[in-house]
Amino acid sequence: MISLRVAIIQTEGCHCEIRKPANMLRHIQIHTIASRKAAVDLIQNGLVRGISQSLQCRRPEVELTSVRYPGVRRGNYAQLSDRHVQHFRSILPKERVITETEDVAGYNVDWLRMVRGVSQIVLKPKITEEVSAILEYCNAENLAVCPQGGNTGLVGGSVPVFDEVIISTSLMNSIVSLDELSGILVCQAGCILENLESYLSERGFMMPLDLGAKGTCQIGGNVSTNAGGIRLIRYGSLQGSVLGIEAVKADGEVIDCLSSLKKDNTGYHLKHLFIGSEGTLGIVTKVSIQCPPSPKAVNVAFLGLDSFDDILRTFTEARSGLGEILSSCEMMDLLSLDAATSNLKLQRPIGEFPFYMLIETSGSNGTHDEEKLTKFLETLMANGVVRDGTVASEPSRIKSIWQLRELIPVGLTHEGLLNSYDMTLPMKHLYDLVPLVSERLVGTSAIRCCGFCHLGDGNLHLNITTPKFDPDVLKIIEPFVFEWTSKLKGSVSAEHGIGFKKTQYIHFSKSQSSLNLMVNIKKLMDPKGILNPYKVLPAQH
Amino acid sequence: MISLRVAIIQTEGCHCEIRKPANMLRHIQIHTIASRKAAVDLIQNGLVRGISQSLQCRRPEVELTSVRYPGVRRGNYAQLSDRHVQHFRSILPKERVITETEDVAGYNVDWLRMVRGVSQIVLKPKITEEVSAILEYCNAENLAVCPQGGNTGLVGGSVPVFDEVIISTSLMNSIVSLDELSGILVCQAGCILENLESYLSERGFMMPLDLGAKGTCQIGGNVSTNAGGIRLIRYGSLQGSVLGIEAVKADGEVIDCLSSLKKDNTGYHLKHLFIGSEGTLGIVTKVSIQCPPSPKAVNVAFLGLDSFDDILRTFTEARSGLGEILSSCEMMDLLSLDAATSNLKLQRPIGEFPFYMLIETSGSNGTHDEEKLTKFLETLMANGVVRDGTVASEPSRIKSIWQLRELIPVGLTHEGLLNSYDMTLPMKHLYDLVPLVSERLVGTSAIRCCGFCHLGDGNLHLNITTPKFDPDVLKIIEPFVFEWTSKLKGSVSAEHGIGFKKTQYIHFSKSQSSLNLMVNIKKLMDPKGILNPYKVLPAQH
Repeated sequence: MISLRVAIIQTEGCHCEIRKPANMLRHIQIHTIASRKAAVDLIQNGLVRGISQSLQCRRPEVELTSVRYPGVRRGNYAQLSDRHVQHFRSILPKERVITETEDVAGYNVDWLRMVRGVSQIVLKPKITEEVSAILEYCNAENLAVCPQGGNTGLVGGSVPVFDEVIISTSLMNSIVSLDELSGILVCQAGCILENLESYLSERGFMMPLDLGAKGTCQIGGNVSTNAGGIRLIRYGSLQGSVLGIEAVKADGEVIDCLSSLKKDNTGYHLKHLFIGSEGTLGIVTKVSIQCPPSPKAVNVAFLGLDSFDDILRTFTEARSGLGEILSSCEMMDLLSLDAATSNLKLQRPIGEFPFYMLIETSGSNGTHDEEKLTKFLETLMANGVVRDGTVASEPSRIKSIWQLRELIPVGLTHEGLLNSYDMTLPMKHLYDLVPLVSERLVGTSAIRCCGFCHLGDGNLHLNITTPKFDPDVLKIIEPFVFEWTSKLKGSVSAEHGIGFKKTQYIHFSKSQSSLNLMVNIKKLMDPKGILNPYKVLPAQH
Repeated sequence: MISLRVAIIQTEGCHCEIRKPANMLRHIQIHTIASRKAAVDLIQNGLVRGISQSLQCRRPEVELTSVRYPGVRRGNYAQLSDRHVQHFRSILPKERVITETEDVAGYNVDWLRMVRGVSQIVLKPKITEEVSAILEYCNAENLAVCPQGGNTGLVGGSVPVFDEVIISTSLMNSIVSLDELSGILVCQAGCILENLESYLSERGFMMPLDLGAKGTCQIGGNVSTNAGGIRLIRYGSLQGSVLGIEAVKADGEVIDCLSSLKKDNTGYHLKHLFIGSEGTLGIVTKVSIQCPPSPKAVNVAFLGLDSFDDILRTFTEARSGLGEILSSCEMMDLLSLDAATSNLKLQRPIGEFPFYMLIETSGSNGTHDEEKLTKFLETLMANGVVRDGTVASEPSRIKSIWQLRELIPVGLTHEGLLNSYDMTLPMKHLYDLVPLVSERLVGTSAIRCCGFCHLGDGNLHLNITTPKFDPDVLKIIEPFVFEWTSKLKGSVSAEHGIGFKKTQYIHFSKSQSSLNLMVNIKKLMDPKGILNPYKVLPAQH
């Protein structure tokens, strides 16, 4: 395994950090598109389980956010000085106060390479008390702060816009407890989702959420952004499964609502102020979460279909025929799948169809599940709704099929710049935007316009690639897609959040009364506005 | 059916209101213990589906809250005057502004007949705009307000403490929409839970919550108190299933976050300010809720066991063997069951055992479910963990078995006064309080001390009956049970809420930092404190 590490470094000539001992090679920090490709080979060979994102990038060619969005003005915050750095060194050991430009660079750029800040410092606390001391000082000194988890967000929420002090939760990665009777897990915010999943699966449990970025994203970031993912249809949202949170307010006060109880109706449910507020009301430091038991049997079907109407028919049938064992219901169009098969050389397991579905079942009895799935598929194939399909129950084949879906975003980034949109829409109009936008983009620099959906949640991911950032393409897409979504009473951000990039579009999905209340809550909890400024709340840029 | 109505009126000599046309006799307002007994007969004969609570009681013998809790001082609110009443009559038609003492009386008393206010007015809006106009006026005039749904709460949260203006949501009972593809229901706050269930079941869906008070409780009250109930183990909490809320703030501003989308990450999740805040931050006027499809097969097993250890073994086995089809896992001790069988003359379907369990499965394939249940029961009976049991799959038998569990609280009220406690505790200590408190009560006026649990949620309902209110018994129970719960890091209110009766005990389950934040949010959203005063927030009495 060690040789593989060396191979990448030698071949690509870029820094490659291995987070785990080399004999557990699973997480590789990918720093250039070239090295990303090498990692994809590793994935195809089954040697690496997930794709990671760019950190400490050596080629900061991304345009500065302040240049790309000239309308955004830096807030009236203090500038970082030597005195500040000295104070941070009194709170944290020297090696956890990062100030070398080269080392800080990766933390300034988002995964999509769309936005870039100019922070000069990254702080890496290990415990809540350190986060508290840092924030208390920043608040007193009027220093703006950008909390950062795995930095896998797609809306520019996890990197600084200007020179905010970056507080990385990466080293807050301890598991506090697991109650093996109730399945309630308590852990620090910096635990990587996939590591938690591994820990739990050895003990008969699973995380209630799963998403493509699992190899890098952190549970604190998942909670702060109310991450959705591929199993929401079965295990519900984090608003239901997160039982408690410990968070630090802007002034350093620790809000301890880390209840690890399934029911607790003692006063306001404060944890929800931190779920999905993207680090603007506090920094989540610990999480308590209800984990379901691992399923005893898992099956995955990969199906080819002719039309979106057939997709809807299959979804309705799946909900009825597979019922309680349905754990995922995904759909992708041919161009989405092609981004994974052509750009990443993954193999398409069935022929070419306009649409594909990935249906997963998880249950407590393999025989029963297989019977349900067989009956469901036989019916749909007999009446011609499903044209072709393949079923997998063996873990490595299940993984291969899931990669076809999960690596689409990575495949898309190989084409240059990825413009990623994320709407909730009424089911029958869920796919309409893809042909509509495609048509509008004819004759532009756009390479590909495609869509894939979390069907059970009415959630479309619309994706457009361009060779490089193209403001003309952007003008064709925005605000058109937001206005269209708003007309159908959809959400302009189903799961990615508002972050930095969507603050001017939030009013398409939020009433003015709600926005006013949001602003007032922000003022109450962070009067100086030091926490993740320029994010979430309505703004002009 | 009409004759039955007359029969009650003639036999019991008390007012009896039938909410539905007589040929759909299902909801009867029960006004005295005597008429309650008559209604139980109707239930046993299958003529009435649910027990309702006391409204417009003609015998207001309950001690005034201001007398029973002399430490509580009336806030500095205005007194209701003729001018105020005249203004309310300009907002609502005359028949929806209730001021006759006799008509208002029932709204002043809670279901447990533990607390009684002296409000002189009940307002019955039908639409959000009316609620808004009422609150805007009350806020301007500094009139305190008590929102009231079905008035089935057990902590004195839904009745006035002094002379608060009562706003009843009973007439806000319209269903706005049901999306039959997604199962998303939008309705007004005053819809009765059981009516929603009936409406949905005719369309292939079900409510994600169910509780004993379903025949009277309203969805707005369920949401405002974050009601749990008997199926949380399968369908999760309201925090997960409520998708959107429309609520009116103290100043009359309508907060429209009535998203009917499964995913919507556009800013702060404001709906959670209203879920479980018991009407102290706003009055919920509309709710959007995700409803699961109706199961195709339901089975119920009623089991007898020797010890609480055997209960825990059976629970663990049920979670593993029944897995995704487990929809309820309840436990009751012999004395709890006896309150239903002896006091209400319900029939016990199996012999006498120290403990009983009620396990429900709901699934999409009857044959599979039966196989799983049979295997589960055979294993547990073979190794002697379950001593005896009966299984029902026929709806009327399922209903009879559920009544044994759901009517326990009604059975308990027949003994006089019911002191009801509601804790979340670690599973292995879930039942400990029952023998502990029983022992402490020897030699007092206590009639019965018993416990039943929502096992899957670690939620104990501890119940103590006395012939009448007895402060000496109360002193033995409180704060002992709260201190004991706090030591085990449990919750002093799993699902009933804080209401009026538990405000002095909230600190046993909430950190000071959380309490401070609660107080600040209350000040932000209701600066004059007119909304449901003396409730939820920490107080001395």
